[in-house]
Amino acid sequence: MNRTQLIEQIRKKQSYLCVGLDTDLTKIPQHIQSIPDAILEFNIAIINATKEHCIAYKINTAFYEAYGAKGWEIIEQTLAHIPATHFTIADAKRGDIGNTSAQYAKTFFETYQFDAVTVAPYMGEDSIRPFLDYTDKFTIVLGLTSNKGANDFEYLKTEDGKYVYERVISKIATWSTPENLMFVVGATQAKEVANIRTIVPDNFLLIPGIGAQGGSLEDVSKYGMNKDCGLLVNISRNVLYASDKKDFAEAAANVAADYHQQMQKFI
Amino acid sequence: MNRTQLIEQIRKKQSYLCVGLDTDLTKIPQHIQSIPDAILEFNIAIINATKEHCIAYKINTAFYEAYGAKGWEIIEQTLAHIPATHFTIADAKRGDIGNTSAQYAKTFFETYQFDAVTVAPYMGEDSIRPFLDYTDKFTIVLGLTSNKGANDFEYLKTEDGKYVYERVISKIATWSTPENLMFVVGATQAKEVANIRTIVPDNFLLIPGIGAQGGSLEDVSKYGMNKDCGLLVNISRNVLYASDKKDFAEAAANVAADYHQQMQKFI
Repeated sequence: MNRTQLIEQIRKKQSYLCVGLDTDLTKIPQHIQSIPDAILEFNIAIINATKEHCIAYKINTAFYEAYGAKGWEIIEQTLAHIPATHFTIADAKRGDIGNTSAQYAKTFFETYQFDAVTVAPYMGEDSIRPFLDYTDKFTIVLGLTSNKGANDFEYLKTEDGKYVYERVISKIATWSTPENLMFVVGATQAKEVANIRTIVPDNFLLIPGIGAQGGSLEDVSKYGMNKDCGLLVNISRNVLYASDKKDFAEAAANVAADYHQQMQKFI
Repeated sequence: MNRTQLIEQIRKKQSYLCVGLDTDLTKIPQHIQSIPDAILEFNIAIINATKEHCIAYKINTAFYEAYGAKGWEIIEQTLAHIPATHFTIADAKRGDIGNTSAQYAKTFFETYQFDAVTVAPYMGEDSIRPFLDYTDKFTIVLGLTSNKGANDFEYLKTEDGKYVYERVISKIATWSTPENLMFVVGATQAKEVANIRTIVPDNFLLIPGIGAQGGSLEDVSKYGMNKDCGLLVNISRNVLYASDKKDFAEAAANVAADYHQQMQKFI
């Protein structure tokens, strides 16, 4: 799915909700935990319950990798159940020297055919370039993250008075166009979203940190939206674990519907 | 394998060579490419040919992930062929918010039982802490990398005159002890190795960048060695692809033996 098609889906549905499939076997309802393919069955139920409210799904690879090869099969099977109308993100935060990043890009863009993958910026241009070489896919680079640890290095002040995260975003923005480059910007730092919009007015921002991590949808929408919407707001735990009983899918649908309604107002 | 055991192996063998299994199906000898389990068979041949010269193996996960679930089976099978006398590193460069990093730590330390995993520092303490919580395993954090892109952000100068990579190493060094924390330091920056030794005199350094990437073993050994050796020098392509003919294993053994001989002089 390219940028034009993504914007079309957002306009049509009046939603910029991304549902994060960070599925943890120990947190899904007990009545499902013991069935074969529990994680896959849970994911399918969540996808079916939320697809009318969201425009993207983000698969957090860590939660699948922990099961070894079996986990990667579940990623593949889950992807097969995501409708073609929905944008798919591998939240994998990869990044290495060029020949290695090329393998990671191949993994997520060819072997698994995700629309996008998240990438860590520390190692610089040649670690990100192999992802950007896929002009019909999206590279989503960590800018400012939503966790406490963002203070350790992302908020280091550089000699020109800018924070490291500002230098990261402004430099990487010159390496490609908004057609295939997005940034991760944590919603817990809503006051910074307006600042980031001055650096990258056109790129989509993938926003984690609303819900379980405490960010405000209203603030992020107010400071982060651009003429194309330009936001993908991810919710994981609040949707996935809305109920730990048999009504978990209905409860997930209700939470997703609630975000959808709020987004219809903000868009 | 803990730090004491690692040092014992280094002393016994007079080697600090790590062989990197960045196995690329398109680069291994043609006569192997078409056999079933080509990558695994190649890895086993390389392990058998080099094990008397090295003390560690580093599996670059990207080269396996590109094959999906099958690739993770090859990782598992390759690990099963590495002798218990050898230190095992998952070169995976993971890092995410706490609950996600905990899943990555589980993946590499429990599901696959590596001795160590490489981790990216951008997201700060809570992204690294879940790895460090495994006190009997090693977390190897990116400090200064060997690629050209290191100039983009690792060499940004912070307001106190230090480079970002110096701030990263000095801060992370306070989060644990050399008993379970190492740093990646690229050999192409040999002049910086001496400087890094003043920041972390006791931690082991995992050194990529010698061989295909152009770093000097002599310089790195001179500037980086401490009283416990403190170095793991990784060679990947120079060993793996020493020959593209039927003698590939013998050629790999010869290259490993050559590094081993040099190391016996430097240690």
